[in-house]
Formats: sequence, structure tokens, C-alpha cells
Amino acid sequence: MDFELTNYMETALHSAESAAKRGEVPVGAVIVDSKTGRIVATTGNQMVGRHDPTAHAEMLAIRAAANMVGSQRLVDCDLYVTLEPCPMCASAISLARIRRLYFGAYDPKSGGVEFGPRIYDHATCHHKPEVYGGIREERAAALLKEFFAERR
Amino acid sequence: MDFELTNYMETALHSAESAAKRGEVPVGAVIVDSKTGRIVATTGNQMVGRHDPTAHAEMLAIRAAANMVGSQRLVDCDLYVTLEPCPMCASAISLARIRRLYFGAYDPKSGGVEFGPRIYDHATCHHKPEVYGGIREERAAALLKEFFAERR
Repeated sequence: MDFELTNYMETALHSAESAAKRGEVPVGAVIVDSKTGRIVATTGNQMVGRHDPTAHAEMLAIRAAANMVGSQRLVDCDLYVTLEPCPMCASAISLARIRRLYFGAYDPKSGGVEFGPRIYDHATCHHKPEVYGGIREERAAALLKEFFAERR
Repeated sequence: MDFELTNYMETALHSAESAAKRGEVPVGAVIVDSKTGRIVATTGNQMVGRHDPTAHAEMLAIRAAANMVGSQRLVDCDLYVTLEPCPMCASAISLARIRRLYFGAYDPKSGGVEFGPRIYDHATCHHKPEVYGGIREERAAALLKEFFAERR
């Protein structure tokens, strides 16, 4: 597997681990400018800490990156996230015109890309990123499993 | 039609008008605590002003209300918005456990409730609000039409 790619996902996994330490469901995201290879945002879930149901890692990453770039559209950017995005995040990725989406674990219960409403599979979806799932899938899934096992 | 209901939508329409004056697509939203009848958030689109593709009126309203209530879940709250929510916002409304969704104009091109991915019609949608569309529909649609006509 491509070294750079797994490296970015590794950074997202570190963010997921940090999220778990704060009592957040361990999901981490990274946005990369594909032209320079530079990371423009690294975030983890903050729903609990911010009392904000929309504060998923992907949403925070998109907001941070758009703010940094000074544009609503992140046309040259790729997003790496440890879990398949939910429908809200999948739609936000489309609105932000993200070029490629790389995700870790698949999410049959709450995912919105390969499961549920399959956000990119509709004619009314105005931008469909290229999607690559299952990147460092086992590690991403293990983090979530450990987190929920400790809370049972 | 119920007086209170149209009154809340009237407030959302005022927010949509303010958004237009700032150069934003005119959509406004209001969140009401159904137990007290009190408005807990009033917002308009801010995507342009904030350089944020996720800054739709509904998202800002949910974030503001959750922050005020100090909880991710807005179980007793109803959301009024002048346009049918897009898939991102429809999903966020579900995540926030909003009780009822009242919207104005239908949106065949980008809506996510009655059109496109129909967010609430999937088994993996963990909370489905009661939905009432077409509230003050003509006024809401006229605002959007005027806005885009001026920009052509």
C-alpha cells in the first residue's frame, strides 16, 4: 500500500486515540492538500466536549481547512477518516468538493457512503468524491471496539 | 393554520431575508423549545461569510441551541426552516434528536428529506423527526427566486 496514504491515515488514527482519551468515540480525520502533500487539518470527534451533535471529526476538519484556505471549496483536498462517514459528514464532504475520500472501518449501522442512504449514489448529489474504503481498517475498528468494551 | 407555527416560520423568513442582504442564499432557521414555546436559536445561512460549506442555517441553529442547552440532544425542540433541508442538515436534525421538522419550500434539486437520499426513510436512521413541509412555502420560494434572479 502507498506509503504516504497510510502515513496520513496513521495521523488520523492518532487523532482517534486522542479523542478516546477525552471520552469521545474514537474517530479521527485529516485533510491533505493533494498538490503540496501538506496536512491542512487534523481533528478528532468533539461531540461530548463541545455539546455539539455535529462536531464529528470530518465536520471539524472541513471547517478548519475551509477557514484556513479561505474558501468553501476544498477542490484539491483529500480527506482521510478512520470510520466510514455518516450521512451528515458524507454530504458535507460533497458540499466541500473534496477530491478523494479515504476511510478506515466500514460502518453498516450508521455509515452513509456504502450503507444507509448511500449519499453519493443519487442524481441530486452535485459532487461525488473518489472513495477508497478499508484503509487500516483493522486498527480503526479495534479502537472503536476497545472504546465501547470499556464502557459496558 | 396554527398561529404559533406560522409565527415561528415568520421569524425564520426574517432570518432568510437578512441572509440575502449579506449575499448569502436566503435560508433561515429557528429552533423552539416545545415545552416553553421559547425560541432558543435563530440563524441564517453563513457559508459565504464564514468560508464554511457546512454553515447552513439549520447547522448553525443546532449548534447554537445545543450549546445553550448544554446537551447534544435537543429532544423537546422543534426546528423551523424556510427550505427543505439538504442531506447534511437532515442528518444533523436526526443526530440532534429534534422532535419536529417544519420546512417551507420543497427542494427537488438539493433536498434530502422528500428528495434525493430521503434521509429519514432508511432503517439505519436512528431518529426520525415528525416532518411537516410546505409551511409559508410561497414566500420562502419567492425569496430564493428573487435572490438568484438578481444574480443572473
